[in-house]
Amino acid sequence: MWLSKQKLVKSTQFLVLNTLFLLWASIAQAETLLVEKKRFTTKDFETVSGKVIKQVDVGWESYGELNKDKSNVILITHFFSGTSHAAGKYAESDPIPGYWDAIIGPGKAIDTNKYFVISSDTLVNANVHLPNVITTGPSSINPDTGKPYALDFPVVTIRDFVNVQKRLLDSLGIKKLHAVVGASMGSFQALEWSIAYPDMVERMASVIGVGQMDAWTIAMLEHWAAPIRLDPNWNNGNYYSGKPPLQGLSQTASLIAQTAMAPAGFNFSTQKFPTWDAAPLQDIRNNFQMVDWLKGRGDQRAAMQDANHILYLVRASQLFVAGHNGDFEGSMKKIKAKTLFLPAAGDLLLSPKLAKAAHDLRVKQGGNSQYDEIPGIWGHLDGIFSISQKADVLSKFLEK
Amino acid sequence: MWLSKQKLVKSTQFLVLNTLFLLWASIAQAETLLVEKKRFTTKDFETVSGKVIKQVDVGWESYGELNKDKSNVILITHFFSGTSHAAGKYAESDPIPGYWDAIIGPGKAIDTNKYFVISSDTLVNANVHLPNVITTGPSSINPDTGKPYALDFPVVTIRDFVNVQKRLLDSLGIKKLHAVVGASMGSFQALEWSIAYPDMVERMASVIGVGQMDAWTIAMLEHWAAPIRLDPNWNNGNYYSGKPPLQGLSQTASLIAQTAMAPAGFNFSTQKFPTWDAAPLQDIRNNFQMVDWLKGRGDQRAAMQDANHILYLVRASQLFVAGHNGDFEGSMKKIKAKTLFLPAAGDLLLSPKLAKAAHDLRVKQGGNSQYDEIPGIWGHLDGIFSISQKADVLSKFLEK
Repeated sequence: MWLSKQKLVKSTQFLVLNTLFLLWASIAQAETLLVEKKRFTTKDFETVSGKVIKQVDVGWESYGELNKDKSNVILITHFFSGTSHAAGKYAESDPIPGYWDAIIGPGKAIDTNKYFVISSDTLVNANVHLPNVITTGPSSINPDTGKPYALDFPVVTIRDFVNVQKRLLDSLGIKKLHAVVGASMGSFQALEWSIAYPDMVERMASVIGVGQMDAWTIAMLEHWAAPIRLDPNWNNGNYYSGKPPLQGLSQTASLIAQTAMAPAGFNFSTQKFPTWDAAPLQDIRNNFQMVDWLKGRGDQRAAMQDANHILYLVRASQLFVAGHNGDFEGSMKKIKAKTLFLPAAGDLLLSPKLAKAAHDLRVKQGGNSQYDEIPGIWGHLDGIFSISQKADVLSKFLEK
Repeated sequence: MWLSKQKLVKSTQFLVLNTLFLLWASIAQAETLLVEKKRFTTKDFETVSGKVIKQVDVGWESYGELNKDKSNVILITHFFSGTSHAAGKYAESDPIPGYWDAIIGPGKAIDTNKYFVISSDTLVNANVHLPNVITTGPSSINPDTGKPYALDFPVVTIRDFVNVQKRLLDSLGIKKLHAVVGASMGSFQALEWSIAYPDMVERMASVIGVGQMDAWTIAMLEHWAAPIRLDPNWNNGNYYSGKPPLQGLSQTASLIAQTAMAPAGFNFSTQKFPTWDAAPLQDIRNNFQMVDWLKGRGDQRAAMQDANHILYLVRASQLFVAGHNGDFEGSMKKIKAKTLFLPAAGDLLLSPKLAKAAHDLRVKQGGNSQYDEIPGIWGHLDGIFSISQKADVLSKFLEK
């Protein structure tokens, strides 16, 4: 009922087109974009919070070829629930390609015939039980104790994610980034890159991002963390020798899934489930079908994730203010890159107003900045689902 | 940062004016609007779900005088976390008056010099530990067992809330409602009244309401319930002889508080708290100050509430579709009342689109319907905080 018929037809057309495009893209790249996960290890990593992590391991992957003078590098930074797997497939038999396969590949907006595209798993990546994810966080073994860090792992920030990526690029002899592009939490990293290493970053594209957290978003992210802490199996983070807090983690995952969607997209996804139903009327212990569907998605996610890692990702996101010193305006002044801010018009999680504020500040400070909005019914998720609608904007920005 | 300076000045002006108005209203009514809580008891109440509750007790209060022919009655139906206390004070020393005191009282939009205004606590009211609340729900004693019902209490619906109110009005000999007016969950009851008893309701005002639930809202309400179920003290609803699930309940209350607010209002309320802070950077166990502030509000609420009652209120709200038979359009056709739909423009919980859909259907069906939006920075809560901005619209609607 939130979708007029006209809009529904348009959305359906769009979905069909999008599916066809993904199918075509998937066929087009099946031969060329088989990707391999690699491991990067670095020692004695000092965090923004002033702690030292003795050994950091993260996974990374790349698409396209690094040119001779190493001037064709585009770094892709991933979102909260994401991994380095931005495009391609690890094996022909993978059911779906990486999350931004619609715009990364040969001849696509981020053209792997031209660019060497690289992406790495962040510190405290959520998906520790996915076979291709390599990360370091509270579930990792603390070399001082021989046991998992649990909550003794230091709080890490978006700047720390960036600094690990810097070490990875250093190890490859890369000294310039043609661009850094990221969605959501990936946009925080992209923006932070342009402030931490302004001489290195030529272009920065922030997709469904913000320049800094506001109180509302900090508090909303805390609601994501709360179900984990309420699960008795969580046990103050010490569950590695017992049962993990899967119920709390599943609830967290399903709350994240919902807050990342706008009502129109959610209702479209769940249209086969009735909103008036006999079972939930008959007994308080029964659920609505769309609630069970959402719980099922939460359970699937939870099976791949580590609960403490989610708490650390929440904290890293809550602490995000460009520059990581509380001086937003001063930090933004350091940027030398051309910038593009591309929020989703219907985003209820990270409001376009926050991206607009960052863009406006860049313009006020005399920066070269561009602003556009991704249309769609999915809200925050339009940054992934509807990104191909802004393929032209992105490819032109990369040529600028 | 969501609030431009201009908007901030306007909002501050508005808040100051609103406070002055409330102060004036509070002085104006201090002598006249002292209200008394009364008890209504009814037997053998059959629910929509086909169960019988042997005894129902609810509290009620009224403002103004019932005229001779009992033709001046306005029923006020309360929201999710609310009670019958819509206006006035129980004692001169009460720190604040009822929630809609800005529009209910002598000379106000709902003028108690003209109208007999009546309001009652719903079934399964949340605030069972507030001294002036009288309700019947899972915390009540089941006469068959001599113990609290817990989850054996039947699922109740908005229609059941209405049917209890109908018995209360019957007991007072009231056969006509000049109007029924409610906010949020109160709007569901108001609309349901106009369908269940179309010949009795002359005017229906739905404030921050909808005509029926959509999947997104049903799922969001489930997230409100989840923290209670995760708290080990909840114990499948059987906690009445032990410790109540206060941690889960507090998290539920703070999530409700946040989802009822739009970012601009939330940020305005929490502007004294830093968004970049040393404590949460130093240890994952530390909180942001605005998170502690919100948790504190949750704790205060939880101390007054019963967890199972919240689960039943969630279910009653999830099951809401005008008419309670799944036939939204057919049910809306039964309405004979003049209707007014008054959502909040910035509502992120119950979108204005849902109220607009109900209004548009009324118009399409040839009904006399009016639509307007409450402006403000508070989102859903503008239906309470900013209602005086639509005092004229309401008072004119009551004269129509």
